Amino acid sequence: MEDLRRERRERLAAWAAAHDLDALLVTRLVNVLYLTGLDSSNAALLVRADGPPLLATDARYAGTAARVCPELETVVDRRVAETLLERAAKAGARRLGFEPHAVTVEQHSGLAALAADGLELRPAGRPVEELRRVKDEAELRLLAEACAITDRVFDDVLPMLKPGVTEREIAVALERRMVDLGAERPAFDSIVASGPNGALPHHRPGDRPLARGDLVTLDFGARYGGYHADMTRTVAIGAVADWQRDLYELVRRAQQAALDAVRPGAETRAVDAAARDLIKAAGHGDDFPHALGHGVGLEIHEAPLMGYDKTGKLGDRVPITAEPGVYLAGRGGVRIEDTLVTRAGGPELLTTTTKDLLVL
Amino acid sequence: MEDLRRERRERLAAWAAAHDLDALLVTRLVNVLYLTGLDSSNAALLVRADGPPLLATDARYAGTAARVCPELETVVDRRVAETLLERAAKAGARRLGFEPHAVTVEQHSGLAALAADGLELRPAGRPVEELRRVKDEAELRLLAEACAITDRVFDDVLPMLKPGVTEREIAVALERRMVDLGAERPAFDSIVASGPNGALPHHRPGDRPLARGDLVTLDFGARYGGYHADMTRTVAIGAVADWQRDLYELVRRAQQAALDAVRPGAETRAVDAAARDLIKAAGHGDDFPHALGHGVGLEIHEAPLMGYDKTGKLGDRVPITAEPGVYLAGRGGVRIEDTLVTRAGGPELLTTTTKDLLVL
Repeated sequence: MEDLRRERRERLAAWAAAHDLDALLVTRLVNVLYLTGLDSSNAALLVRADGPPLLATDARYAGTAARVCPELETVVDRRVAETLLERAAKAGARRLGFEPHAVTVEQHSGLAALAADGLELRPAGRPVEELRRVKDEAELRLLAEACAITDRVFDDVLPMLKPGVTEREIAVALERRMVDLGAERPAFDSIVASGPNGALPHHRPGDRPLARGDLVTLDFGARYGGYHADMTRTVAIGAVADWQRDLYELVRRAQQAALDAVRPGAETRAVDAAARDLIKAAGHGDDFPHALGHGVGLEIHEAPLMGYDKTGKLGDRVPITAEPGVYLAGRGGVRIEDTLVTRAGGPELLTTTTKDLLVL
Repeated sequence: MEDLRRERRERLAAWAAAHDLDALLVTRLVNVLYLTGLDSSNAALLVRADGPPLLATDARYAGTAARVCPELETVVDRRVAETLLERAAKAGARRLGFEPHAVTVEQHSGLAALAADGLELRPAGRPVEELRRVKDEAELRLLAEACAITDRVFDDVLPMLKPGVTEREIAVALERRMVDLGAERPAFDSIVASGPNGALPHHRPGDRPLARGDLVTLDFGARYGGYHADMTRTVAIGAVADWQRDLYELVRRAQQAALDAVRPGAETRAVDAAARDLIKAAGHGDDFPHALGHGVGLEIHEAPLMGYDKTGKLGDRVPITAEPGVYLAGRGGVRIEDTLVTRAGGPELLTTTTKDLLVL
């Protein structure tokens, strides 16, 4: 990965030069991780248009930085952004780009005060997120392994989905099995929503025991090598009513329609619409109150957002989720989600667990 | 907790009125949780100086909000801050406070554009964090339970600390035992740093097996009811060298000196200095490169920061950590940390695991 990271920094340096910046101050931590390999709660990177980059972190992470990115000059200082700004100013920078979505108003005031002496701070947009959107094959291998673990976890936990087991017990079992299978940790707080709780898209697993006749939605994923898998399946416990099967098949068809619409060059909202139009036509438009999906990678939610009100086109090698859901207050819900990656020849599913309705 | 939360909102409304604000727009998610009970990845609260508060969240959390804080009027909209600003403007607000440490430059631009029509956006400091600093007894009970779980986890995992077991295996065991004992989850990524890795204060547990003669630092804690425990112990494996015992006793005395200095009204930097001066006098000033500790509560790190360069006084009922450490590159380190709460009669230790050097 070291070569990849150097290449990313070089591309960013070129971007800065092309945008009339002497340097870009990267303070968003996940972006610093992407560019350096350093996973820290306090770090920043100065990417210079014309010169080597400069890393800053505090003493807690200095030893880790020396191990992870020994090729980078590193300043050890708790005030990571401020110290890099001072170094840039001292080196004669006049236009310093910053990440306006990562710098708070308070931080900006502090930086602007330091920058008073002829150094201009310019909001630089999201160039690192743009680089991150299209993944390297090395990143895709890590993501594929995260998804493979996620599939295996589902298989392994399936036998415990029985009446009487609580949502929380299932969530704990999912997360433990991930770690047993090599995950660093869960990619996000697992959702296990049974019966009427399934009507809450982001329900937190509680003490409700599964009961015969429940639909149960499991939304979970493993993190592996820093990359986040995301999969949802809804299963039935013991028996399934007609309305439940109809709802399931509707969501399944909607998800397939979205997958069929995924290709490099597709408009993200067209992919959302492919699923949403089917759900609307079935009279459940208002019961699908979230976007179709989102990009995944070093973050569980990242660009692109696959929403009905978003513009933009899918590129090649962009991992996304497709996760339509229908939620009926007081009754329950269904969501079906895969992580997939756009490929010229059609979407490559990274999660491959069956989408046949399982009645357990 | 509902009464407590209403009281917090009322205090904040009074604060806004006293600071010449028509309303305060709370966008920091942990602050929204503190004021409403809603734990969401997208929510905001408008606290009006003269009127009932208004919550905003998106459709994924609308059902949860209706369960958790039914007493609050709730707007369901994905653009949570923007919709509350529009509501405030429509209601005639002229001065709207915002949290400058939570609002990014990008968000602020968007809000300012909406606010053009005679509504002034004012940075309001950190009034919610100030309220949060001193804990209610109900909060302290949750934190005490988080700490009690943490103590029990240490006892239960101690027997596995033997040569050959890897750092990662120990970290997994710590985190599983927490959940077995009722924790929601780990309060943070557990640190297990053995032998030379102990010289990295924030080492991530890896595949290194413990070896006879290692010092091993375990820094971990349980989260319970939203509250975060934080404890560190360093133990010796099989045997202990003189330099290791000397280092341990130095850090232990330093930690005790800090505890002795804790009282309501004490300067935070004086508490830090009580420990730091001892470590400096032993010639290890440069080997203690972090603050003595930090507040804990709904966040693992919150106000007050107990650093040598921080001003401010401790109040009553303020939970903090005291965690001096000494780190010797290439050799190893020692850190000893408790979570405690300031009380008029002296500090109340919430973590109570022995600080005698255990040789296992």
